[in-house]
Amino acid sequence: MSKGRLEAFSDGVLAIIITIMVLELRPPESGDLAALAPLAPKFLSYVLSFIYLGIYWNNHHHLLQAVKGVNGGILWANMHLLFWLSLIPFVTGWMGEHFSTTPVAFYGIVLWLAGLAYYILVRTLIAHHGRSSLIAEAIGRDEKGLRSLYVYSAAILLSFVSPWLATGLYVVVAIMWLIPDRRIENKLAK
Amino acid sequence: MSKGRLEAFSDGVLAIIITIMVLELRPPESGDLAALAPLAPKFLSYVLSFIYLGIYWNNHHHLLQAVKGVNGGILWANMHLLFWLSLIPFVTGWMGEHFSTTPVAFYGIVLWLAGLAYYILVRTLIAHHGRSSLIAEAIGRDEKGLRSLYVYSAAILLSFVSPWLATGLYVVVAIMWLIPDRRIENKLAK
Amino acid sequence: MSKGRLEAFSDGVLAIIITIMVLELRPPESGDLAALAPLAPKFLSYVLSFIYLGIYWNNHHHLLQAVKGVNGGILWANMHLLFWLSLIPFVTGWMGEHFSTTPVAFYGIVLWLAGLAYYILVRTLIAHHGRSSLIAEAIGRDEKGLRSLYVYSAAILLSFVSPWLATGLYVVVAIMWLIPDRRIENKLAK
Amino acid sequence: MSKGRLEAFSDGVLAIIITIMVLELRPPESGDLAALAPLAPKFLSYVLSFIYLGIYWNNHHHLLQAVKGVNGGILWANMHLLFWLSLIPFVTGWMGEHFSTTPVAFYGIVLWLAGLAYYILVRTLIAHHGRSSLIAEAIGRDEKGLRSLYVYSAAILLSFVSPWLATGLYVVVAIMWLIPDRRIENKLAK
Repeated sequence: MSKGRLEAFSDGVLAIIITIMVLELRPPESGDLAALAPLAPKFLSYVLSFIYLGIYWNNHHHLLQAVKGVNGGILWANMHLLFWLSLIPFVTGWMGEHFSTTPVAFYGIVLWLAGLAYYILVRTLIAHHGRSSLIAEAIGRDEKGLRSLYVYSAAILLSFVSPWLATGLYVVVAIMWLIPDRRIENKLAK
Repeated sequence: MSKGRLEAFSDGVLAIIITIMVLELRPPESGDLAALAPLAPKFLSYVLSFIYLGIYWNNHHHLLQAVKGVNGGILWANMHLLFWLSLIPFVTGWMGEHFSTTPVAFYGIVLWLAGLAYYILVRTLIAHHGRSSLIAEAIGRDEKGLRSLYVYSAAILLSFVSPWLATGLYVVVAIMWLIPDRRIENKLAK
Repeated sequence: MSKGRLEAFSDGVLAIIITIMVLELRPPESGDLAALAPLAPKFLSYVLSFIYLGIYWNNHHHLLQAVKGVNGGILWANMHLLFWLSLIPFVTGWMGEHFSTTPVAFYGIVLWLAGLAYYILVRTLIAHHGRSSLIAEAIGRDEKGLRSLYVYSAAILLSFVSPWLATGLYVVVAIMWLIPDRRIENKLAK
Repeated sequence: MSKGRLEAFSDGVLAIIITIMVLELRPPESGDLAALAPLAPKFLSYVLSFIYLGIYWNNHHHLLQAVKGVNGGILWANMHLLFWLSLIPFVTGWMGEHFSTTPVAFYGIVLWLAGLAYYILVRTLIAHHGRSSLIAEAIGRDEKGLRSLYVYSAAILLSFVSPWLATGLYVVVAIMWLIPDRRIENKLAK
């Protein structure tokens, strides 16, 4: 089975998720510069989530490069990832409006579940392609993915101490991933 | 006529339908954990509809794999399916806000009509490709599709007794379809 | 220049236009069957516009089949068509909420302008491909397109007499186009 | 690495941005012609932004034609462009509702940042393909892009004198770009 439609559907869903978040940024009621100030936390939440979704698209793109074919299990592992990513606009809007423990913790929970779903997708792809396949070699044990899950867990706990510290960790993971995943690029280039 | 744009357009519409449903999940007015509780029925409706739309995309994907070409009738049979699927966000939102007989019954009616539209699409494809084609052999009389229609009918009737029983049947059909349609995969593999 | 991205972008825009219309159909405030009744005009407007956008997608699909290449003028003629189609959700929502002369007339005006934009797109494509090209032979003088413009004009005038008569004519044009455009299919089959 | 998914994702995001702007155009509360009058500034903002996004799609299309491959840096330069473009619906809605200095200046700021992001994308592509590549020859120093940034800067300053003058300059830049970028077309035709 070809991977073309899996990519097209994922691109469509990710493009919509990344774009509808901006609908939360309502134009202010007045035309004054001061009217923009209350939008600052919403805007920063939007920037953070835009970057996270960009990272997911980027890594998904890299991951699928090394994929030869798909089966039913892979389709559902991918759908599962898209499900958690589809909740990002919700938690982004919530965190942007109420920057406090619960919304910030839920932002982390959704990131954690999306990270887990990505990890499951990687495992499903490796199981389908075999332990000695290009994708298995390129990704290995996906330690970067596992490490992200640990940092998210810490951030969720920290949000009870300070939402700012938790958000700082979300930013750290984003920066960690902004450096593109050269593992697959390198393997493909060989 | 090639099937490429039919797939691309269907992917686009399905990606949008599956994603705009999340717009119904409005971030709560307060930042308390308790503020999430009233969203539970909406969230569960969203999960159910996400799975249903995932199933439709999956089966559509499998179905179109076995298709060689399309004509005007197929384009319209596909558009008809997309029409009923486009109403799923509406009934999902209604059922999520008012979990009672009428909305739950309407959820089933839309599922029933989408199921019928899928059945018509399958028939139209078989009519175009011929009784001895790959698609005809792989799908046969589409008994799984017909069986779903019977269960939906029962669920619609049961919603007058108990919305919970009806919803239970919707979950049963979803599980029945989550097991991917191996008929086409098997035929293609031969 | 290849036509692939022109098709992909048009598919994307049309898929979104056809889908966001359903956002106008808000789930009713109560769970009673009676709460659905006021939605009837909105629903019927949605059905009509869904069919119109389906027709446009279908004809666009057929038209582009016969196209060999695109240039800047074609890209803009296509964008112009998408602009008027993007206003269909607006007039659909207006007509669905206020079924009276002005909204019904504006529905026709947008259809008229979209029809004109399609006609201009056809002319631009023929100018690029030459009078003796497949597309020129298949479409000819596009009398069906011109005829639609006349009927829209009549409907706009009639909306001042009766919105129902005008809407009747919109339905007539839709039925006229539901019969797929066999001109290109026939030419391609030769 | 292939550019197919980069194009598909960009097409998706641009298609959604261009289309969700129309959601700002809410159907009026009454069915009178007079009810449309207050929508005029919103409508004109929509037209201007539609044209700008059309220009970006067109130029992106032309630009990617000359591209042979992509890397991580290019993916992020493209994502950066999409980020600023995603803010166009926000500033369009604001300017359409409050046609005064601050919103009109912010419209220009977003255009300026999108213009800069496009310029960075062009530079990143040239850096990847080499100074003697087709894309480097076709685009050169991208003086048209730089000139646009100067005009946007002037318009932002002018918005403090008169929002109308500033908007006039935005229209001038749009007209300047509506003339399609023949540089790449010419180079490819050789």
